[in-house]
Amino acid sequence: MNYCNQCGASVIRSIPEGDHLPRFVCSECHSIHYENPRIIAGCIPELDNKILLCRRAIEPKYGLWTLPAGFMENNETTLLAATRETMEEANITLESPSLFSIFSIPHISQVYMFYRGTINSAITGPGTESLEIALFSEAEIPWNDLAFPVVSETLKLYFEHQHNHDATFNGAIIKTNDQLITRFY
Amino acid sequence: MNYCNQCGASVIRSIPEGDHLPRFVCSECHSIHYENPRIIAGCIPELDNKILLCRRAIEPKYGLWTLPAGFMENNETTLLAATRETMEEANITLESPSLFSIFSIPHISQVYMFYRGTINSAITGPGTESLEIALFSEAEIPWNDLAFPVVSETLKLYFEHQHNHDATFNGAIIKTNDQLITRFY
Repeated sequence: MNYCNQCGASVIRSIPEGDHLPRFVCSECHSIHYENPRIIAGCIPELDNKILLCRRAIEPKYGLWTLPAGFMENNETTLLAATRETMEEANITLESPSLFSIFSIPHISQVYMFYRGTINSAITGPGTESLEIALFSEAEIPWNDLAFPVVSETLKLYFEHQHNHDATFNGAIIKTNDQLITRFY
Repeated sequence: MNYCNQCGASVIRSIPEGDHLPRFVCSECHSIHYENPRIIAGCIPELDNKILLCRRAIEPKYGLWTLPAGFMENNETTLLAATRETMEEANITLESPSLFSIFSIPHISQVYMFYRGTINSAITGPGTESLEIALFSEAEIPWNDLAFPVVSETLKLYFEHQHNHDATFNGAIIKTNDQLITRFY
């Protein structure tokens, strides 16, 4: 950040009075420009013991597989963000999605939230941000061609829970970076 | 937003190619300036069937009572944000905080996360953002002097669960605005 988005003057990095962290502060109008983590919301689409993945048609990680997910927008809920992204990337809807996992990734200032739910629409083909979509059993997951570590981690935890818990599992796994904080059953 | 924070030129509101929402886009360097929801993380500090609240020493809602909470910063986890804010506002630490509630408030583009946990430090006095701190039983909660609706809602849900569930309750309540999506037990 070089310039104030309010008045166009230069910003300087300084700790505002009463604050404890350096911020970008306008040298003219003294506006403080805070920067905060972003939420990435997505879904784990389930059907007949398989999971739907999308092959990315955009950078980063063009051509690799991922769960449908994307940045939460202003004026929506976490659930709406997750289902909107799933519709945009995979053209599907889910029945009663429930929160499965929350990951904090502090070094990139992101918080991931994944909802799980059964696909309840026809699978017609990929959205514009995906090259293709496909259903994978646990044995078929393309582990070496997944786009992001958080997707691998989420899928590993998902299948671990499939093995260890019955269909009544309804909970959230809260992770922060590489430390498991809490599991809810 | 009036000016590009990268090059200082004017921004215009337009839908970038491949996008579906209007963004602030620089008229010169064409940088796209996304705006996303912010996370507010906080705690429900418990001690002897009472909850610690803080009376706000800052605007908005100066003088009203709240749970310790604040904006999550870059490069921290949701848990760290919650416990940092609790230290800053109430000078206390909690034993093994666990996520209790997540609220999406779309009309102000905020997502609240509250962790519950037992106070395991001495209660010495308020932090600089609080006028005073105090412990309240359910009957003593100053319902008419709470700072924010999300605090009232969280406390109501908290006490409801205290009545309906025993001490083994360990779960999260996921709310979006005024619709209860999911409860985990």
